[in-house]
Amino acid sequence: MRTQENRTISVPATLVRGGTSKCWLFDVADIHGRGASLGAVLVAAFGSRDRSQIDGVGGATPTTSKAAIVAHSYEPGVDIDYTFGQVGVGVERVEWGSNCGNCATAVGLYAVHSGLVRPRGDHTRVRMRNTNSGSRIDAVVATPGSAFVPTGDAVVPGVALPGVAVGLEFIEPVGSGALLPTARAVECLGHGEAPVTLVDAGAPAALLDAPSVGLSGVESVTEFAQRLPGLLPLRREAAIRMGLSTPDQPIDHAVPKLGVVGPARDYTTTAGTRVDADEYDVSVRMASMHAPHPVIGLTSMVAVAAAATVPGSTVHRYTAATGRIRIGTAAGVVSAALDLDQAGRLAGITLNRSARVIARADIFVPAARGEPAVAR
Amino acid sequence: MRTQENRTISVPATLVRGGTSKCWLFDVADIHGRGASLGAVLVAAFGSRDRSQIDGVGGATPTTSKAAIVAHSYEPGVDIDYTFGQVGVGVERVEWGSNCGNCATAVGLYAVHSGLVRPRGDHTRVRMRNTNSGSRIDAVVATPGSAFVPTGDAVVPGVALPGVAVGLEFIEPVGSGALLPTARAVECLGHGEAPVTLVDAGAPAALLDAPSVGLSGVESVTEFAQRLPGLLPLRREAAIRMGLSTPDQPIDHAVPKLGVVGPARDYTTTAGTRVDADEYDVSVRMASMHAPHPVIGLTSMVAVAAAATVPGSTVHRYTAATGRIRIGTAAGVVSAALDLDQAGRLAGITLNRSARVIARADIFVPAARGEPAVAR
Repeated sequence: MRTQENRTISVPATLVRGGTSKCWLFDVADIHGRGASLGAVLVAAFGSRDRSQIDGVGGATPTTSKAAIVAHSYEPGVDIDYTFGQVGVGVERVEWGSNCGNCATAVGLYAVHSGLVRPRGDHTRVRMRNTNSGSRIDAVVATPGSAFVPTGDAVVPGVALPGVAVGLEFIEPVGSGALLPTARAVECLGHGEAPVTLVDAGAPAALLDAPSVGLSGVESVTEFAQRLPGLLPLRREAAIRMGLSTPDQPIDHAVPKLGVVGPARDYTTTAGTRVDADEYDVSVRMASMHAPHPVIGLTSMVAVAAAATVPGSTVHRYTAATGRIRIGTAAGVVSAALDLDQAGRLAGITLNRSARVIARADIFVPAARGEPAVAR
Repeated sequence: MRTQENRTISVPATLVRGGTSKCWLFDVADIHGRGASLGAVLVAAFGSRDRSQIDGVGGATPTTSKAAIVAHSYEPGVDIDYTFGQVGVGVERVEWGSNCGNCATAVGLYAVHSGLVRPRGDHTRVRMRNTNSGSRIDAVVATPGSAFVPTGDAVVPGVALPGVAVGLEFIEPVGSGALLPTARAVECLGHGEAPVTLVDAGAPAALLDAPSVGLSGVESVTEFAQRLPGLLPLRREAAIRMGLSTPDQPIDHAVPKLGVVGPARDYTTTAGTRVDADEYDVSVRMASMHAPHPVIGLTSMVAVAAAATVPGSTVHRYTAATGRIRIGTAAGVVSAALDLDQAGRLAGITLNRSARVIARADIFVPAARGEPAVAR
């Protein structure tokens, strides 16, 4: 055996569930400068060379192959800076291009757990900046009696087990752009028969009126999967109208987020739970690339909530939500709180999430040849 | 929030890859008496209520939802007792009914890593007893210069990344039963056209002659999947001949292990690597329940190696292996060493495996209501 292959560095990390994702969180001081690059350390720690991630801590799926690097922020009014990385599965690469709402939830809980932010009162605000997107997000962590608690009774659709309640506040979600890129509350796609609201908050989204395209909004995942291929060409059309693409560019199946919106009706979740119409405000079925999203992504939740503030939008016609919106998804009901300023402008959106610290670990990371390594 | 849901116990554990599995290993002193039952602690730690195991350390697949409890042995001549548990995925239950060769490999490396067994010389023998089956298995761990090394250059088919070389020795693999339950080297199944060796070592196995059933033995996983349904009725017939079942009992798709054996021929692995006929001795394609096994299970390897010692068997006709047998699988070549006593009787079989300690952790396990809990 070669000497250099017999070296491993030990990297402290904490595994936290945030919403429906598992994220490995690293203190910047523990991981910075520990290998040729941060990406090289992460792909070795996660075992990304194998699709099974069998030789590392990765979970071999997109939602279980996530990492975030956490640091004290030097920005006034901000407690924590974090950088999100989507670690490759079967590919030795880390993607740093986007934020992840589930990991933001995990970072909020971790900040209190690790002592980076001291618990104050029954709810502790962690002021975060995501360095990938520049977004400001606050996590409001349940800390009853000014104490960190390891678990709680907050549940989110898609996870049967409970966790600590964490409110995730997207601050100024519209950012510097326009909430309505086309300046209209409703556009018509296709041959004029598909009313849609094109909105840019959290992420760019195209929210179709479900009944107008022959859907109810309370379809099961299987039913929505059957109807989705007929809707996908509308995403392309929406991308061009929103200025996200031009007719000569290749089709991007990720942008904008595409979904249908309908009135609240009784339905049954994927897990078989009955949901009554009076338990929520608006039904939503979103696509994730070419397939139905089993629940709804957090950035899509922000888009739906923002659209609810726009009179005449495909969301607003079913709910005139002012303070709170309850969204019926195939997995169950998720809710968001809206913060409107005195002019009625959207200043923030809060999502009710749950998180739990699963484990504290020292990860043994094989040192690549030629990289600095610390003997175990 | 209810008080009892806010309690968590912290349980030390070590994550080790053994061969193509990931196993969480627990020192008996750390986990014994920490909950209403050992099973309850494991299903909570792994997050088994969700099929995604998103709220725990489980990996949501059978090969990544494994645990073993490790203890010093009080048996003379044995260093380590270990108990293997297959932790449920979407089912809050632990199955204690069988042994796992990959976890045995992991336990061997862990024994040296944790100091339970002191490294001596370039290879350290860890004498283990599996309490599920009563089997004696030794792990011979590479410890160059009488030292634990965190990684090495040993690879196994199915895992791209290297690890520490661990030889896994199944001692007296035939046990108290008969190597050939029907006392014949070859039986004929079906309408007399399917020669098979029925062998009981490691696990009961039915090893069909590939050319006699129209196969080569070097089929791809896809090709073997297409042909497998036609072979499955032969498993039922083999089970009855081996005395494992009777015609009035329901069909058990797990027993015996079913596979085909053919001559060494040039072929290409699932990952696209070319294997020449002279790189191995005999080709094997095994089934796992109703589907092709992507490689070969360790207990099936023991059965194939044991069959190679039987003149006239379906394995022996292609290789008269005496000291070592190299088996060509869809994922690549795996090898086993045979230990024959002076009478030519099989005294042991050694498999060349690899293992790596991935992480050392404290797992935060939610305490079930009414169970004893220790505040964090």
